Amino acid sequence: MKIQSVKLHKSGFWGKRVEQVGEIIVPYQWQALNDKVPGAPRSHAMENFRIAAGLAKGEFYGFVFQDSDLYKWLEALSYCLMNQPDPELERLADEVIEVITKAQQPDGYLNTYFTIKEPQNRWKNLRDNHELYCAGHLFEAAVANYQATGKHTLLDVARRFADHIAAMFGPEPGKKRGYPGHPEIELALVKLYRLTGETRYLALAKFFIDERGQKPLYFEIEAKERGEEKPQLPFWTPGYCQSHLPVREQTEAVGHAVRAMYLYSAMADLALETQDETLVKACQRLWESVTKRRMYITGGIGSSAEGEAFTFDYDLPSDRAYAETCASIGLVFWAHRMLRLDANRKYADIMERALYNGVLSGVSLDGTKYFYTNPLEVWPKACQNRYDLRRVLFQRQPWFDCACCPPNIARLLASIPQYVYSCEKDVVYIHLFAAGEAVLELPSGQVTLIQETEYPWEGEVTIRVHTKEPVQFTLAIRIPGWCRDPSLRVNRDEMDLASLLEKGYAKIKRKWRNGEKIQLSLPMPVERVRAHPEVRATAGKVALMRGPIVYCFEEVDNGPNLAQIVLPSDAELVVEGRDPMLGNAVTLRGMATKVDASAWGDELYAPIPYNNKTVPIRAIPYYAWANRTPGEMTVWIREG
Amino acid sequence: MKIQSVKLHKSGFWGKRVEQVGEIIVPYQWQALNDKVPGAPRSHAMENFRIAAGLAKGEFYGFVFQDSDLYKWLEALSYCLMNQPDPELERLADEVIEVITKAQQPDGYLNTYFTIKEPQNRWKNLRDNHELYCAGHLFEAAVANYQATGKHTLLDVARRFADHIAAMFGPEPGKKRGYPGHPEIELALVKLYRLTGETRYLALAKFFIDERGQKPLYFEIEAKERGEEKPQLPFWTPGYCQSHLPVREQTEAVGHAVRAMYLYSAMADLALETQDETLVKACQRLWESVTKRRMYITGGIGSSAEGEAFTFDYDLPSDRAYAETCASIGLVFWAHRMLRLDANRKYADIMERALYNGVLSGVSLDGTKYFYTNPLEVWPKACQNRYDLRRVLFQRQPWFDCACCPPNIARLLASIPQYVYSCEKDVVYIHLFAAGEAVLELPSGQVTLIQETEYPWEGEVTIRVHTKEPVQFTLAIRIPGWCRDPSLRVNRDEMDLASLLEKGYAKIKRKWRNGEKIQLSLPMPVERVRAHPEVRATAGKVALMRGPIVYCFEEVDNGPNLAQIVLPSDAELVVEGRDPMLGNAVTLRGMATKVDASAWGDELYAPIPYNNKTVPIRAIPYYAWANRTPGEMTVWIREG
Repeated sequence: MKIQSVKLHKSGFWGKRVEQVGEIIVPYQWQALNDKVPGAPRSHAMENFRIAAGLAKGEFYGFVFQDSDLYKWLEALSYCLMNQPDPELERLADEVIEVITKAQQPDGYLNTYFTIKEPQNRWKNLRDNHELYCAGHLFEAAVANYQATGKHTLLDVARRFADHIAAMFGPEPGKKRGYPGHPEIELALVKLYRLTGETRYLALAKFFIDERGQKPLYFEIEAKERGEEKPQLPFWTPGYCQSHLPVREQTEAVGHAVRAMYLYSAMADLALETQDETLVKACQRLWESVTKRRMYITGGIGSSAEGEAFTFDYDLPSDRAYAETCASIGLVFWAHRMLRLDANRKYADIMERALYNGVLSGVSLDGTKYFYTNPLEVWPKACQNRYDLRRVLFQRQPWFDCACCPPNIARLLASIPQYVYSCEKDVVYIHLFAAGEAVLELPSGQVTLIQETEYPWEGEVTIRVHTKEPVQFTLAIRIPGWCRDPSLRVNRDEMDLASLLEKGYAKIKRKWRNGEKIQLSLPMPVERVRAHPEVRATAGKVALMRGPIVYCFEEVDNGPNLAQIVLPSDAELVVEGRDPMLGNAVTLRGMATKVDASAWGDELYAPIPYNNKTVPIRAIPYYAWANRTPGEMTVWIREG
Repeated sequence: MKIQSVKLHKSGFWGKRVEQVGEIIVPYQWQALNDKVPGAPRSHAMENFRIAAGLAKGEFYGFVFQDSDLYKWLEALSYCLMNQPDPELERLADEVIEVITKAQQPDGYLNTYFTIKEPQNRWKNLRDNHELYCAGHLFEAAVANYQATGKHTLLDVARRFADHIAAMFGPEPGKKRGYPGHPEIELALVKLYRLTGETRYLALAKFFIDERGQKPLYFEIEAKERGEEKPQLPFWTPGYCQSHLPVREQTEAVGHAVRAMYLYSAMADLALETQDETLVKACQRLWESVTKRRMYITGGIGSSAEGEAFTFDYDLPSDRAYAETCASIGLVFWAHRMLRLDANRKYADIMERALYNGVLSGVSLDGTKYFYTNPLEVWPKACQNRYDLRRVLFQRQPWFDCACCPPNIARLLASIPQYVYSCEKDVVYIHLFAAGEAVLELPSGQVTLIQETEYPWEGEVTIRVHTKEPVQFTLAIRIPGWCRDPSLRVNRDEMDLASLLEKGYAKIKRKWRNGEKIQLSLPMPVERVRAHPEVRATAGKVALMRGPIVYCFEEVDNGPNLAQIVLPSDAELVVEGRDPMLGNAVTLRGMATKVDASAWGDELYAPIPYNNKTVPIRAIPYYAWANRTPGEMTVWIREG
């Protein structure tokens, strides 16, 4: 059994977002990549390719990894073509691919920075120079483009480059024993292997992963060869790029959070392909480290701006949360791969948490503004005036100098249909709830599953089976960990969920007939969520969740000085309905107490009580913050 | 009437500290200044002078302001000699002064950095190079040394240098219209003027103050002359050193907090000497800015490590408090001078707040370890692991690379007797309560005031008058702002305080007879103090104070995870008694609730309540923290 196609309905939460990528985001980002968005930081990514291809004259501009912005955008575009044919976008992709093809060097090498600026310095600094990282993004784009269009021009480019790299790196005598400072190529090589069947690509991925962290450290060897005195990044340590230990010996998530996610994703891929239990165990340990001790409630990760990095257990300050959009995206990648290793709800729960919260907050409701960092608390004046908050922005930006996040979120959103279902033997898993249709291919023919739901705003999910002939398979439906009181009916029969549950999935094995339906009911009251008591930053505070959605409070709804609002422990919080200004999101209302600052006077400190007043409060989904008047925001609110 | 001498009793709080400076701190710091403290950062300050004097060979080492460490130490030593004759210390001072004298150049210039390293660059970069700053500290040391010993060797050195500077800077044609990047010389010149009567020094102080912030900005003129492209300090702005506006136009305290304090102190001095109302008004506006909106409860100021600076109103994070020891010392200097301008309790209240809390926390109980920054909340793991907390230390240090604070606290503590009383015409003010004796000189002869008190641990203060003949004068006794229910008896008569009070001082005008006594009673219950509601960082929290003492909670008394302790709003807090381990400080005890982390499990987030337990809590004076086992600390504690 395999999944042939997944279409999401445009009326649904994700379907609408998927559509937006093709209609708004990809065209917008094309303008940005060509420096046609007024006021946006310069990209020059496309022009770099034109110059390297000999089609234009000029200097390279941007970071050494500038190429990856274009590749990720092209990957996103390709997913859009899978979701919805679009001849104009496809033609644009073909034009871009033609330029990329021309930028490839005769020996297969492809990187505009080194081709234009430093051809003599190829592969001399794997630690900093992102050549392998960019290659990985090329491979991912190529695989997606082939899958979307059946055209193999970019795939051929990718394979030529992959072959070039395979000839350069590996354990064999005469090859460099290096690996990338920024993981990415590993998971991309697995994708390339899966598509082409070329075992050389899998072997190279395995080499990069196995070699990482071995002593003597390759990064130190190459640094010595360059005659380098100290690393370019002042805070660089081997742990920054997860090369402090061989990967199988790593137990805590450390260093740059995006690098960690891409590496762990590749480890999970490799574990699946090679059935390597030692890698599985390492992935599981690291999973616990991230999700039990080093993750924000939004699925944001990396709580330090310095190094965009993990720090230590339970260190999760709300105002200085870095929580890079790319890191949460990486967490989704990793969770998705862990699910393939082990169909356990705990992975899907985190995937869903990150998707609806820490990932989605990275893009404005209209698709054209982006957050790089995703704080859980913002006091705009502090962001503007405090040096230690200089990287916390309180308004989304049209683009960035380092623009990794915008095209990353584009490619993830465009590929959401791929995250909803999976198949394993005769089991079809439903990981996410999203209105749409999935066509399954069985030996006996096609089966279509139709999901109808208003999720995440309502907890009712109906799944209908369309099949010509009755067909035997197992439907495994995720019962989200956030739901306390789920129930499930097949046709008219209430099922005993407990007896069906296996690792959080309700498994219904039967001969399905045409028109049969499953009705899942996931009651979603407003919940007050607390953090582990070891988290200092959230002491005395709760966050509101409803279903998978984390809520927040904004100044535009609640006035300034959110810190002085206290939610009484018995205060009722009610669903207010859908707000068309916020993309029809469900918002919450309640009453709270707030310190009446006007009653205080001008003393800075005094042994007197505060005057409190009762105030209405309103919470909106965290992902939707900063789409109206800029101001304060907080996810965690005091409870008293 | 004037004060002839003040001696503090060694049994009293300040008397003990004053004694410690002479017996422990000054000898210890002499070792540090000569690089004889094992494990301490290198100072080289004394050796720099020996080299500049031609008495030793070698290279200059340290900051461009390294000389000031020695000057401040010498000033401290001189105050010790005033407090208590000590032939050995005096001989040491003479030896040091001899070396300083030899380091002075024939033209009067004196700065070891420029003499040894860059003689060609004298006076070329007033913005960064601290030549005028170091000169100011020389002048202060010289005045103190002369007053302590009657010897004028150092005073002569200071005058020669001051004359050299006066010939170099000023409004007259041919002179540089510059002023120091780091104020200090201004207040020192006023001291020099007051001692010598030389009006040139007052005029130069006035020039430096009046010229500051005038356009075109001198720092930009001299930078252009140097051909400089951008300032050495990346965050430099004119506001960093209070040169963004002429001083009379400044309304908010901005920039480097120590510089601000030294400048405002000089402005107050100048205002007093010149009766310049525009300067008085500027001082008052800035006073409100600092003490009503930009000061920690401890009297700590400067809430940003970047630039050691003020930020904006009510931005007072506890964990990232910079609150440099020198800045609180500067606040004491300024408050002391504001008191001379206007005998208003509000200045003395802040002076006392800073002295007992934000200043005193800068030195260990044993006198040999120092804090540079004085946070109000510490989680050691975060200080060790978070880059944005890298400058927050949780243990005092034996010395610093930039060692401004240790000798600064030494000179302030040694001079505490000068802060207790003041005289104006026939009024003698008592600003601080400290066991000891003050000898007053009146036209009719000497009067001795004897203070007996256990302050700040007890609120009873007895003041006895010793006089041969009955003598008419006014005794003005500060009634601290923190006290809600003070009472005062003269001999056996209960006084009507309200009718005596003038700007917070109880003024008793009478003909005093020998043996008469005043008994002041200042009840000091434990108070729960709140911050202005606009302070986000302290929302929902209280600080405990008793009398002038701010309390804190340490892990060694209360276990880890202080954030999870909640003080019930009705919890009684009792005085526990005196703790000999903490220099006989009064400590507090009570019961509180604390989240039982062991009952939580391993979920990072869950919609479940915490289990609470009742725990005993103990608070100790903030200044005494970090004298036992290192660990967490907090001043502000949640109240519920």
